[in-house]
Amino acid sequence: MSAFNAATAVHPREGGGVYDVDLDLGWSIGGKPNGGYLLAILARAATEAVDHPHPLAVSGHFLRPPEGGPAEVHVEQVKSGRTVATVRSTLWQANKPCLDSLVTVGELAGAPVDYTSMTMPGMPSPEECRSRADTPFKVELLDHIDVLIDPATAPFPTPTGHPMIQGWMRFRDGAEADALALALAVDAMPPTVFHLEKLGWAPTVELTFLLRGIPAPGWLAFRAEATFVADGWFDESATVWDSTGRVVAQSRQLALLGRG
Amino acid sequence: MSAFNAATAVHPREGGGVYDVDLDLGWSIGGKPNGGYLLAILARAATEAVDHPHPLAVSGHFLRPPEGGPAEVHVEQVKSGRTVATVRSTLWQANKPCLDSLVTVGELAGAPVDYTSMTMPGMPSPEECRSRADTPFKVELLDHIDVLIDPATAPFPTPTGHPMIQGWMRFRDGAEADALALALAVDAMPPTVFHLEKLGWAPTVELTFLLRGIPAPGWLAFRAEATFVADGWFDESATVWDSTGRVVAQSRQLALLGRG
Repeated sequence: MSAFNAATAVHPREGGGVYDVDLDLGWSIGGKPNGGYLLAILARAATEAVDHPHPLAVSGHFLRPPEGGPAEVHVEQVKSGRTVATVRSTLWQANKPCLDSLVTVGELAGAPVDYTSMTMPGMPSPEECRSRADTPFKVELLDHIDVLIDPATAPFPTPTGHPMIQGWMRFRDGAEADALALALAVDAMPPTVFHLEKLGWAPTVELTFLLRGIPAPGWLAFRAEATFVADGWFDESATVWDSTGRVVAQSRQLALLGRG
Repeated sequence: MSAFNAATAVHPREGGGVYDVDLDLGWSIGGKPNGGYLLAILARAATEAVDHPHPLAVSGHFLRPPEGGPAEVHVEQVKSGRTVATVRSTLWQANKPCLDSLVTVGELAGAPVDYTSMTMPGMPSPEECRSRADTPFKVELLDHIDVLIDPATAPFPTPTGHPMIQGWMRFRDGAEADALALALAVDAMPPTVFHLEKLGWAPTVELTFLLRGIPAPGWLAFRAEATFVADGWFDESATVWDSTGRVVAQSRQLALLGRG
């Protein structure tokens, strides 16, 4: 079993509606479980609770950061259907909800692309990129995912003033990314607002993940960008392409600027 | 009272947790209440249920289209906090959930913009644009909102092959748009995939609305764009600017391609 599958495993309780999970701090940033890691767990519970394999749209609202260790996912099916079903999937710990989500699940057939304006950006090869681990911050997650940043968009040592980061990623244990891993992928890069010298912890308030394809084996390419920063808030959108250059995931989050 | 405020009014039942609403088919497209109109109702109930004025992030998952007439909004506060609170807000009709949402509410202070790459597009003036009403489709909503389309991006009579539509909008009764009206604004333009000659009804499965500012009086400018169409699904992102050129709302939805 891959490290990702083990760390996101969900164990159904008898009677239904509740899954036991074990939050693994190996998938953290500075001791806080990564938001995309938590969303992947909620999406896994949602797909297991109903008879559709793929989390097409996952909208997560972050309530409070959980600790590592035991937690529960509570699922409630709010719509069943032939094409899609919708599940509310909520992470609980110590009798408090930590992350609430609505998840619409269905199945992607892998049909040819009809239209795209999101072509994969031209970037240096993975060998020519810089590891995300080369920063002043402790990012435990990087023991499991190799995140490589196009040097022209790396926020360290010199922020560019343009909040965009692109690069490559893959699991270190050789596992190939699947649909659930993409929920993690869209949140595995550094905050793009580092380029604006906002270096504090930037808590995500809301993140919506859209699955657009099942990734082919190989490196994932990503690009994340903030477009509007005001009133202490910023948006950040991410796109992920598979090794064939096909879009496989999109996300947008609303986050609070760090105090740094 | 403005037509919009009347059509989105929510009436609390004694005991709390439930609001009675009356879905007004004047805010429909082809007899189906507009998705943005329904989201505005859910956001209004959420802001009334807790002590924060602004719906900062509203994630709606569309379950089944309601009819016009009486319906209920059920609200459940899942987080209370000084900066933000989170509410689950669900539209029910005939004992079935029609639209489920998570809403994070807070307050925007109207501080100066720190960074933006979303500058308002150059467009012809409203007088030089074309009414959305000049189409083969019945759009009841347009009796309430004047939606004017930049002719270069109008899908009728000739689709461009590029799924982008931009233009202007405002209420016909002279009411100025407020935070809640923006939830409607992000969903009031024609589906951008009309430009790809996909003319059937394109049901939204998920739509996330982000409030980024409180609009100044005057025309709203909008731009909507689909970026990736595959497997029968497309994304559509919209940005709304107020008359000062400030970004005030962003949205992204996942929708099914129509059969047309």
